[in-house]
Amino acid sequence: MNHSSAVVVNTGPSPQAKLHPVPLNAVRLADKFWAPRLKLLREVTLPTQHQLLRETGRLDNFRRAAGKVKGDFQGLYFNDSDVYKWLEAVACALAYQPDSRLASLAEVAVAEIAAAQDEDGYLDTYFTFERRGERWTNLRDMHELYCAGHLFQAAIAHHRATGEESLLQVAVRLADHIAEVFGPHRRPGTPGHPEIEMALVELYRETGQRRYLELAQFFLDQRGRGLLGGGRHHIDHQPFRELTEMVGHAVRSAYLNAGATDILLETGEAALREALERLWQNMTERRMYVTGGIGARYEGEAFGEDYELPNERAYAETCAAVANGMWNWRMLLLTGEERFAEVLELALYNGALAGISLDGQAYFYVNPLADRGQHRRQPWFHCACCPPNIARFLASLPGRFYATSPEGIWVHLYAESTAQVDFGGQTVELNQRTDYPWEGEVEIALRPASPQSFSLFLRIPGWCPEATVEVNGEPVGKKAVPGAYLEVQREWRAGDGVRLSLAMRPEWLEAHPWVGSNAGRLALRRGPLIYCLEQVDHPDFDVWDLAVVPQAPLQAEWKPELLKGLVVLRGEGVLVDGAAWGGHLYRPLRLGSQRAQAVPFTAIPYFAWANREAGPMQVWPLLGSR
Amino acid sequence: MNHSSAVVVNTGPSPQAKLHPVPLNAVRLADKFWAPRLKLLREVTLPTQHQLLRETGRLDNFRRAAGKVKGDFQGLYFNDSDVYKWLEAVACALAYQPDSRLASLAEVAVAEIAAAQDEDGYLDTYFTFERRGERWTNLRDMHELYCAGHLFQAAIAHHRATGEESLLQVAVRLADHIAEVFGPHRRPGTPGHPEIEMALVELYRETGQRRYLELAQFFLDQRGRGLLGGGRHHIDHQPFRELTEMVGHAVRSAYLNAGATDILLETGEAALREALERLWQNMTERRMYVTGGIGARYEGEAFGEDYELPNERAYAETCAAVANGMWNWRMLLLTGEERFAEVLELALYNGALAGISLDGQAYFYVNPLADRGQHRRQPWFHCACCPPNIARFLASLPGRFYATSPEGIWVHLYAESTAQVDFGGQTVELNQRTDYPWEGEVEIALRPASPQSFSLFLRIPGWCPEATVEVNGEPVGKKAVPGAYLEVQREWRAGDGVRLSLAMRPEWLEAHPWVGSNAGRLALRRGPLIYCLEQVDHPDFDVWDLAVVPQAPLQAEWKPELLKGLVVLRGEGVLVDGAAWGGHLYRPLRLGSQRAQAVPFTAIPYFAWANREAGPMQVWPLLGSR
Repeated sequence: MNHSSAVVVNTGPSPQAKLHPVPLNAVRLADKFWAPRLKLLREVTLPTQHQLLRETGRLDNFRRAAGKVKGDFQGLYFNDSDVYKWLEAVACALAYQPDSRLASLAEVAVAEIAAAQDEDGYLDTYFTFERRGERWTNLRDMHELYCAGHLFQAAIAHHRATGEESLLQVAVRLADHIAEVFGPHRRPGTPGHPEIEMALVELYRETGQRRYLELAQFFLDQRGRGLLGGGRHHIDHQPFRELTEMVGHAVRSAYLNAGATDILLETGEAALREALERLWQNMTERRMYVTGGIGARYEGEAFGEDYELPNERAYAETCAAVANGMWNWRMLLLTGEERFAEVLELALYNGALAGISLDGQAYFYVNPLADRGQHRRQPWFHCACCPPNIARFLASLPGRFYATSPEGIWVHLYAESTAQVDFGGQTVELNQRTDYPWEGEVEIALRPASPQSFSLFLRIPGWCPEATVEVNGEPVGKKAVPGAYLEVQREWRAGDGVRLSLAMRPEWLEAHPWVGSNAGRLALRRGPLIYCLEQVDHPDFDVWDLAVVPQAPLQAEWKPELLKGLVVLRGEGVLVDGAAWGGHLYRPLRLGSQRAQAVPFTAIPYFAWANREAGPMQVWPLLGSR
Repeated sequence: MNHSSAVVVNTGPSPQAKLHPVPLNAVRLADKFWAPRLKLLREVTLPTQHQLLRETGRLDNFRRAAGKVKGDFQGLYFNDSDVYKWLEAVACALAYQPDSRLASLAEVAVAEIAAAQDEDGYLDTYFTFERRGERWTNLRDMHELYCAGHLFQAAIAHHRATGEESLLQVAVRLADHIAEVFGPHRRPGTPGHPEIEMALVELYRETGQRRYLELAQFFLDQRGRGLLGGGRHHIDHQPFRELTEMVGHAVRSAYLNAGATDILLETGEAALREALERLWQNMTERRMYVTGGIGARYEGEAFGEDYELPNERAYAETCAAVANGMWNWRMLLLTGEERFAEVLELALYNGALAGISLDGQAYFYVNPLADRGQHRRQPWFHCACCPPNIARFLASLPGRFYATSPEGIWVHLYAESTAQVDFGGQTVELNQRTDYPWEGEVEIALRPASPQSFSLFLRIPGWCPEATVEVNGEPVGKKAVPGAYLEVQREWRAGDGVRLSLAMRPEWLEAHPWVGSNAGRLALRRGPLIYCLEQVDHPDFDVWDLAVVPQAPLQAEWKPELLKGLVVLRGEGVLVDGAAWGGHLYRPLRLGSQRAQAVPFTAIPYFAWANREAGPMQVWPLLGSR
């Protein structure tokens, strides 16, 4: 309702929400990590995506539906959704910073979309003319409700960013049309690809029309009744509230959970909360990559069994990491528990961010954790879901830094930035000075308009081995516990300063021994970043032949010229003598120590891989010993 | 031509063959490993398979095609091939030992097949009546040539076993029909599923009609020209002679190589030999399971990349292990090199044999190397390629024990048995006394009808750490080198005895460090058998929690009552403290030694797994230390 609060999700009433987010246009990033990325997004990524949407006929499909051009529908039947996701990203970008070029592209797109809508509110450019009679006949496969959901999300973001009603009215008309077709006393049905659930709840929040929330509930409740064929791929094998495992198509699964969390935020239904908790535990304890990526299998872009997390053959779709972030964001708002912020941050900096190149113009659909050098980012895809999805995720990022609760202000993410937070009837300015994610020191200057008592909730990330917090130079009386928010309650005055020291040491990670692919291997983490070994940094040996020696020291070093600036980690390993295998695949174990050659290695953050010359890569190098 | 030589493949001329096999009916197995299995095959497996062929409409499809019954074609379009493979197995079984019940079932089946053939020689019961017009229109997907190939193989085996011409005439008529449709000056085409190549070469050997060899060559030469869509799945992405990697559908790939080897056996073409050598090296050095199973991926039942050999998610189709054995058998005949016999033996005792239950009535299609207890053998499959394939592979086994060359007699496989080998114009009886594969001592008594000079070529398996050979109690003057045949040349007289001692110690195997799934893991081998840990033998802990300690001794023990009698291996491991993970999937590495609980373990041969109560299994347990 408040078009100044240009945040993507949950401006809602959301009576069950523990936290309410601070809108993205209240935050100004000034750091060297995210601020340049958001600039690149506005100046390169979103314009080039628009060009590709145009060149591939995705925009023309709307013109065709409006009768403005002739010819066949172009591309995949769900291509409308790419335009909507791009538009949502543009709306967020515009809310964050005006940009006349993007605004003009958005204005034209909104007009084309509006013109393509039918009299009765229906809108899906694939089901026009010759396919008009097939509308709503195959909810499992044909993505009409999925596309509608993306339209709603774009329309809400557009409304909040610009204050204009135009696209929101299109969305409302389509939502009303859908609500006339489907519902308890109407036609049964549920989407083969979840998405509309969270969009309908947000539309309820934006318009106050409870029927949209009820329709989201209806779609959720219709799952597990065989309407989609009863398969796990579509998460139709069980009613949602009975689910115990993350299965099926990873994006579908995480979107569905995000939608269910949105419903829960409004209704507080215990059975939903329990199901979501079970699913979150199953995912994070057994089915998630160390990067926050999800969906192990190529077949069906799906979750595998417990502990099935192949590295070279990881699927880990960029969209799935984004979806993981979206779901955990909602769980964080629901609970205020750090563990959800931690997964959000993990997916953001690693599994999702790897999906876009450093030049903002190429994308990974699949994100392996080991490679022989064949896997490279592409400018676009026939199924182009990932590029605009990572774009909207990054464009909405400033809105995920802060939240408020009745008790105070919550800090989820760290970056050099300024925020104007509405709290207790006044504006509290928070100024973060930090080099996060490269260093763990964070100074936050608070400037309430007038002195005020409230709590500052500081996230102490679970990755952090130890942390200390000072206020105005004095240690706080509480222990900062990694994996929790530290509540600092006091009367805050302009000029008060908090100093948070998050120990950011390079650490070797081991995987649970049941993870088939990671036995005898270690991964490297520093702060929120997962590292990898790339061939280009190791001209003298193949990085697949390196066995790291965890007893050797690790050094972090800032490299301003490397890959737009990043911290590399240096350590020591030994080389596997591949030649000694003489072409054999298996051989009898030789007990006793061979003297192995010690070599230094340099690791870079995983998100930055495949931006230089192609070559082998490893997130989980072999474990060796001196 | 000689119906007493009831061997499945290669009764020659095969001018390029180094070896010529000794037919299966010349060998009598009297061991406790294979002899009971062949008995079970005759008495249980083949009759129950016949019943299932009947119940599932596979036999009725022939009656329908002959106009004897009405109704729809039943099951999958390539179901004819299951009948043919069963019939080939029955023919081998009958050649080995008369069985009136099987003979009668075969006789009826042959009559039904013959009656289903069209006037013009065409025979595929799917393409009759309403689908008659679709014949030969989709070679890529519809398996007509594949079914024809299986018919030819069955017919040749039937002819050799019984001397009857009936089914061979059906095969010849179909082959002539195909030769009229396809060929250099006729229609282009090549089968989407290779199989007919080896069958046509064998039909050439059986009939002397060179056109069948030429047609096999034609089909091989047509690959890689895009006739099948140019995809790797169908091995149509490159001309055969340019292939460097085993790719695509594993059974297709190995059958194709077997067919190409058959062509090479007749033609000696250098380019074929080089391609096959490259492919064999790629497979055995990078793409084969330690069990001899091949085809790592569920998607497309296909080979993966180099070193892509997941354990729990292994596909390793039973048919692919059989195909691997078939191809290596042909390579062995071509070269007389032990490495091919070694892979044949490996696939036989492990990857293929695991495909059938100890009671002979249930089958694995997929053969994982690790499991949580869900994977169980089934009595049959909708796509039932594997059950009759393992049946024909086992039924033909006696024919793979011996071969001859101008220099002498070759012993490939060991088992308590008697053989009558035609050599040098007389019959040489070889009597093996051994408890192989459970023990490595083999005594071979030779009894030529009259004294004769020739070489005895004894296979010294590559798995064997050391071997000695004595003749009449005296060491031979040569070193027995594992991975080669030891040639013992002398004048052999009735009563001469050879004593071969193959050290059969339990050994830990490690995999090449680039095998993503096997770092930090070891497998256990004794003799030709790969072992595994099964949950049912370890009531006190989960076998996935066991980390084996290779420094601890391993003991082999014969257990006559266990799983029809087998040698178990006992060793020691330590337990991973799963509870210490507290539900985490990843954690910082803790350096320094924790005292782990030592526990004993018992391993059983991999082929015998999943014959008792369901539970977790591991071929590659974790590597631990005390």
